[in-house]
Amino acid sequence: MAETIGIGMLGYGFMGRAHSSAFRQIRHMTWPPPLIPELVSIAGRTGDAVAAAAEEFGFAEHVTDWHALVDDRRVGLFDNTGPNSTHVEPSIVAAEAGKHVICEKPLGLTADDSYEAWQRVSAAGVKHMCAFNYRFVPAVRLAHDIVVARELGEIVHFRAAYLQDWLVDPSVANLWRLDKSVAGSGALGDLGAHAIDLAHYLVGDVASVSGAMRTFTPVRAGADVDVDDAFAATVEFAQGALGTLEASRSCPGRRNSLRFEINGTGGSLAFNMERLNELEFSEGTGGFRTILVTDRDHPFMQNWWPPGHILGWEHTFVHELHHFLTAIRDDGDVAPNGATFEDGYRAAEVCDAIVRSADGQGRVLVSYRD
Amino acid sequence: MAETIGIGMLGYGFMGRAHSSAFRQIRHMTWPPPLIPELVSIAGRTGDAVAAAAEEFGFAEHVTDWHALVDDRRVGLFDNTGPNSTHVEPSIVAAEAGKHVICEKPLGLTADDSYEAWQRVSAAGVKHMCAFNYRFVPAVRLAHDIVVARELGEIVHFRAAYLQDWLVDPSVANLWRLDKSVAGSGALGDLGAHAIDLAHYLVGDVASVSGAMRTFTPVRAGADVDVDDAFAATVEFAQGALGTLEASRSCPGRRNSLRFEINGTGGSLAFNMERLNELEFSEGTGGFRTILVTDRDHPFMQNWWPPGHILGWEHTFVHELHHFLTAIRDDGDVAPNGATFEDGYRAAEVCDAIVRSADGQGRVLVSYRD
Amino acid sequence: MAETIGIGMLGYGFMGRAHSSAFRQIRHMTWPPPLIPELVSIAGRTGDAVAAAAEEFGFAEHVTDWHALVDDRRVGLFDNTGPNSTHVEPSIVAAEAGKHVICEKPLGLTADDSYEAWQRVSAAGVKHMCAFNYRFVPAVRLAHDIVVARELGEIVHFRAAYLQDWLVDPSVANLWRLDKSVAGSGALGDLGAHAIDLAHYLVGDVASVSGAMRTFTPVRAGADVDVDDAFAATVEFAQGALGTLEASRSCPGRRNSLRFEINGTGGSLAFNMERLNELEFSEGTGGFRTILVTDRDHPFMQNWWPPGHILGWEHTFVHELHHFLTAIRDDGDVAPNGATFEDGYRAAEVCDAIVRSADGQGRVLVSYRD
Amino acid sequence: MAETIGIGMLGYGFMGRAHSSAFRQIRHMTWPPPLIPELVSIAGRTGDAVAAAAEEFGFAEHVTDWHALVDDRRVGLFDNTGPNSTHVEPSIVAAEAGKHVICEKPLGLTADDSYEAWQRVSAAGVKHMCAFNYRFVPAVRLAHDIVVARELGEIVHFRAAYLQDWLVDPSVANLWRLDKSVAGSGALGDLGAHAIDLAHYLVGDVASVSGAMRTFTPVRAGADVDVDDAFAATVEFAQGALGTLEASRSCPGRRNSLRFEINGTGGSLAFNMERLNELEFSEGTGGFRTILVTDRDHPFMQNWWPPGHILGWEHTFVHELHHFLTAIRDDGDVAPNGATFEDGYRAAEVCDAIVRSADGQGRVLVSYRD
Repeated sequence: MAETIGIGMLGYGFMGRAHSSAFRQIRHMTWPPPLIPELVSIAGRTGDAVAAAAEEFGFAEHVTDWHALVDDRRVGLFDNTGPNSTHVEPSIVAAEAGKHVICEKPLGLTADDSYEAWQRVSAAGVKHMCAFNYRFVPAVRLAHDIVVARELGEIVHFRAAYLQDWLVDPSVANLWRLDKSVAGSGALGDLGAHAIDLAHYLVGDVASVSGAMRTFTPVRAGADVDVDDAFAATVEFAQGALGTLEASRSCPGRRNSLRFEINGTGGSLAFNMERLNELEFSEGTGGFRTILVTDRDHPFMQNWWPPGHILGWEHTFVHELHHFLTAIRDDGDVAPNGATFEDGYRAAEVCDAIVRSADGQGRVLVSYRD
Repeated sequence: MAETIGIGMLGYGFMGRAHSSAFRQIRHMTWPPPLIPELVSIAGRTGDAVAAAAEEFGFAEHVTDWHALVDDRRVGLFDNTGPNSTHVEPSIVAAEAGKHVICEKPLGLTADDSYEAWQRVSAAGVKHMCAFNYRFVPAVRLAHDIVVARELGEIVHFRAAYLQDWLVDPSVANLWRLDKSVAGSGALGDLGAHAIDLAHYLVGDVASVSGAMRTFTPVRAGADVDVDDAFAATVEFAQGALGTLEASRSCPGRRNSLRFEINGTGGSLAFNMERLNELEFSEGTGGFRTILVTDRDHPFMQNWWPPGHILGWEHTFVHELHHFLTAIRDDGDVAPNGATFEDGYRAAEVCDAIVRSADGQGRVLVSYRD
Repeated sequence: MAETIGIGMLGYGFMGRAHSSAFRQIRHMTWPPPLIPELVSIAGRTGDAVAAAAEEFGFAEHVTDWHALVDDRRVGLFDNTGPNSTHVEPSIVAAEAGKHVICEKPLGLTADDSYEAWQRVSAAGVKHMCAFNYRFVPAVRLAHDIVVARELGEIVHFRAAYLQDWLVDPSVANLWRLDKSVAGSGALGDLGAHAIDLAHYLVGDVASVSGAMRTFTPVRAGADVDVDDAFAATVEFAQGALGTLEASRSCPGRRNSLRFEINGTGGSLAFNMERLNELEFSEGTGGFRTILVTDRDHPFMQNWWPPGHILGWEHTFVHELHHFLTAIRDDGDVAPNGATFEDGYRAAEVCDAIVRSADGQGRVLVSYRD
Repeated sequence: MAETIGIGMLGYGFMGRAHSSAFRQIRHMTWPPPLIPELVSIAGRTGDAVAAAAEEFGFAEHVTDWHALVDDRRVGLFDNTGPNSTHVEPSIVAAEAGKHVICEKPLGLTADDSYEAWQRVSAAGVKHMCAFNYRFVPAVRLAHDIVVARELGEIVHFRAAYLQDWLVDPSVANLWRLDKSVAGSGALGDLGAHAIDLAHYLVGDVASVSGAMRTFTPVRAGADVDVDDAFAATVEFAQGALGTLEASRSCPGRRNSLRFEINGTGGSLAFNMERLNELEFSEGTGGFRTILVTDRDHPFMQNWWPPGHILGWEHTFVHELHHFLTAIRDDGDVAPNGATFEDGYRAAEVCDAIVRSADGQGRVLVSYRD
């Protein structure tokens, strides 16, 4: 029988809700689950709100200071779903207190603080994960498996665009996602970081970037917006492929469209997250086949539903947390299929390079620190 | 705060798993939930298996005789997910013991026993639901709302086909779904019943049918198959529309493809369950717009995720059970958006007419009993 | 070098325009062409109109009585593009005068007069073709080749629907296509005949049909409409497959949507004429691959454009006429890839069976005369 | 009645074939045509080959020196379809001899020689056109009309990728398109020029570019390849939009995929040339509607076929040449809907900027000469 692990969560927004729901569904992905999560306590600054969230999400307790989670002996896993500016310090403190840590992306506000988070959490000897959940879409894992099996031959192109439309309306008010001091950046860190992580996961190291950024609506609700609405970048990969990366929150009709395409000398793959159960695969030049990635032998699908019964976006979190719990239970590796804090740092390094490039520095070489 | 309701479940197969998972997610659809389900006990004939299922699904207890659920005072809702041949009697007995009843489709093996189930359960005064879960796909509800608002004008065509491919392989062994005494029929009752219920829900009464049935693989594993692999029928609706209905489990590449299209004098709708978050809508003749049915103001979506974050197949059960729990709590109506036992009976009446038509009776009029 | 052949055309409407344009493009499909068409003369009842058409279409002369074409020694090929009611007699007379004959579909207004046309034209010893041009879509020919090579195994399903939307507007005035004495039937003969011919071409003989017909708008511009707006039929094929056939001109948003799907024990094909350069092919159950049917080794494509440069609807006529000219030049067979008058008759036999079935006769057996 | 104009053509390859076919179809687009083209003479260096082409394409005569066309008084329109290196000089000489000139793209091998071509041809006072035929796709013109009508509001994004796959096979031998001295560049000038012209046509001036180029297969058939297999660039438009441009001939499964997407503050458009009859339009954020651009009131479609009967790739040339003949007849403007030599030059200016950027110059400002 499975053992239990206590969960302490920081943050009760969109991601807090998604992680909480996922913890409850772990048992439906495999039985027995690797570990049985117990929702011990949730932290947030506003007492009433966090109390309501605790009840709704199913946490037994709530606190208004995250340090209480770190000090709580019942907590074995610290789940950091707070705003971007709260990612680094609490993650480090929790790890140094011996908690395993999963932290939402982007890991830090800059490459430097992301690096520090990685170094210190890693030094603490705990398991760590940066919640790039799109690695846990079955179609994305299948894409990865196809690449690793060299069914595409040498990869020559990677293009990814993560497009949304909720900021095309200039009356959308200032959220924390529009405040640089809290979010670090705009579309770049919020959406682009996912595309960059997938580039790393599917193709490998980025050698150089050349990009531009735009804030199409510089004032909202009377306040200056100091983050980007969109960026675009040309990318050269270390192994020789040529790529484009893009993200925007100003693309009408694209609700949540993370699309990527990989071309290799032996075939191509295409994916669109609005149809996340599908992977398009051209074996050679014969045309794209739409694989409905719901078969029993597809990644993550062994214990879900019969073929053709699709999963939703939230299942990416179930798969991700299941992966992390398995690594904790087995003292196994989160990498390479799960993103670690190292991967979080590496994405930040590319983000920073794009910012520097857009700031007039032309093509910028990317150097990852060890 | 929400009150609790005890759940007693019959059956621990595919549907038992789906319902159990859904009960756990009710709280994520709305908080507070209409009622808080408590998984009291689950019944199945094979002791070891049902014991394992109880643990996996989260039921506190398990029994090998469903009568124990009916006698259990803690059970307020009897959830019948057993094979088709166990639908009628236990549902009636449970209702007559005062339990609210939800029963999987098809309601009975014939129109006659379905009618009896409806009459007796209804007479018992409890809430009753036939689990036509596809009414609870957000895109299907949206389609219904568009029809009801008369945005399509007069409906002139309805065509639905529910296609799967798992029986195209002749080596697939004899399951209960291939045994007439347990399943009642093959593709007709398993898949076609869904299409028929959607015809009722979206267009209305069927006036006549003319159909044909086929068993493409008459022997499997040495045993005769006595149910249909496929049927097709032409349908005339009482309000004048012309339709086609079809189901098959022998369509390679169609994993779980329930498609329908509605044409009216003012516009058209098209749906495909393999892309269940999408509804295609042609307002007038201007071409089809793909609506990603994930906005906050779309049906059922108020408390799920931000726009563009898609739901999975299993969420249909969350919505369905939430609807039923709400009706129980409020002493409200399950109809018209939820299917009652009356709807289960009416679908069976059409199924039977198709069988008679295929048996050489040509065009068969459908008459529904009151 | 190629010899020439004189063309005499009856009719100058939509089809007259399409055939005339195609004759001019034959040389672009292969060089040299099988025969070089010379547009000798065109016949129509209204002098001014046919004179204008002759000039526009490139005919050297025009006449108001089609008998003049039959008597014209320069005419080697009689191209009958007149309204349906002018198909039978002129085709017979022309053939009996020794002209090769191509006639638009439907061949006659009934199975009986279609049969007579076939018998007499065939007895005359000339080449004859019924202009079912959709056999000459490259993707359709490719589908046929795949079926013939048994890559689909045994065919178990065929479903075809030919949907348009121009009659959903009740103010569309009475055209000849809405007059039974000229058109014979409505959607059935106009659109359904194409679907029926494809059923014959791709699957084979029809054993029985069971159908229904509807006239949704029975009065237009003050006059009664005596043809159908739509039909639907269930079909049993002689070789065992189950099918549905449907046509309608009242489907908003479906401009010219001829779709078919074939399921076999070994795979499936799907086609949509609005995307006529594409064929979807599921080899086994692995999912549908979209083949862009524009490669040099695809049917008809050897001398067109490089891969990926799509053809249009009108090219079906170029391929069809090229096929017919080749048969004339070589004294070869029009069948099986081209439709002969026999195929025209056989389609009419199925149409008539559908009419009888819809007239209250239930399931109707189809018997083709030799 | 229409007057005639004599056509002298240089080149008898892929484009010579396409233009010749189109001249024959002008009359089918409108009757009477603006001018009736007479195929006077065609020039090519290899006598036998050009003689065969003359016969196939329908030219009355052929010559092996293009100067003969320029000296031919019967020639009113010089149609330059030769390899890229023959674009500039013959076009200038023909114009200075008083011939109207249409020249295939790219206009020159560099921005400088393209500029000279524009200046001198323009000074000659004849009509001139650079054959960016994709402006004459009905869906592209419709996109342009939607942009001009400001139905998209302010444009914020433009992304275009022109992807093919024929060079992914390393055994494809050295063609003129792989020889820099003849072609000027690889994917950039061949495919990218189209994407750049559409960027100009749909969005406007490019302010800066930042790009990278790759030759994935540097040696073919023992010879060095000195042109690019692919490029990618980030683009900043003068009016503020952010863009990406890309072209490659190494993308398996992408036969001839020119895709673009435009996002504005009020809506979005998407196009894919493999489905060139379709335009996807999201009015506001409501989702994309697929417009089948075949209605009578759609661009160019007034005299083609009834709605839903699709056009092919070659019709772009019919529309383009019709446009040019109309400008000649009326002494009207080729711009803004047709591309002039000025547009050819401007595309070359952007191409050159991309080359300089890829050569290590980072972000490069684009300045167009007057």
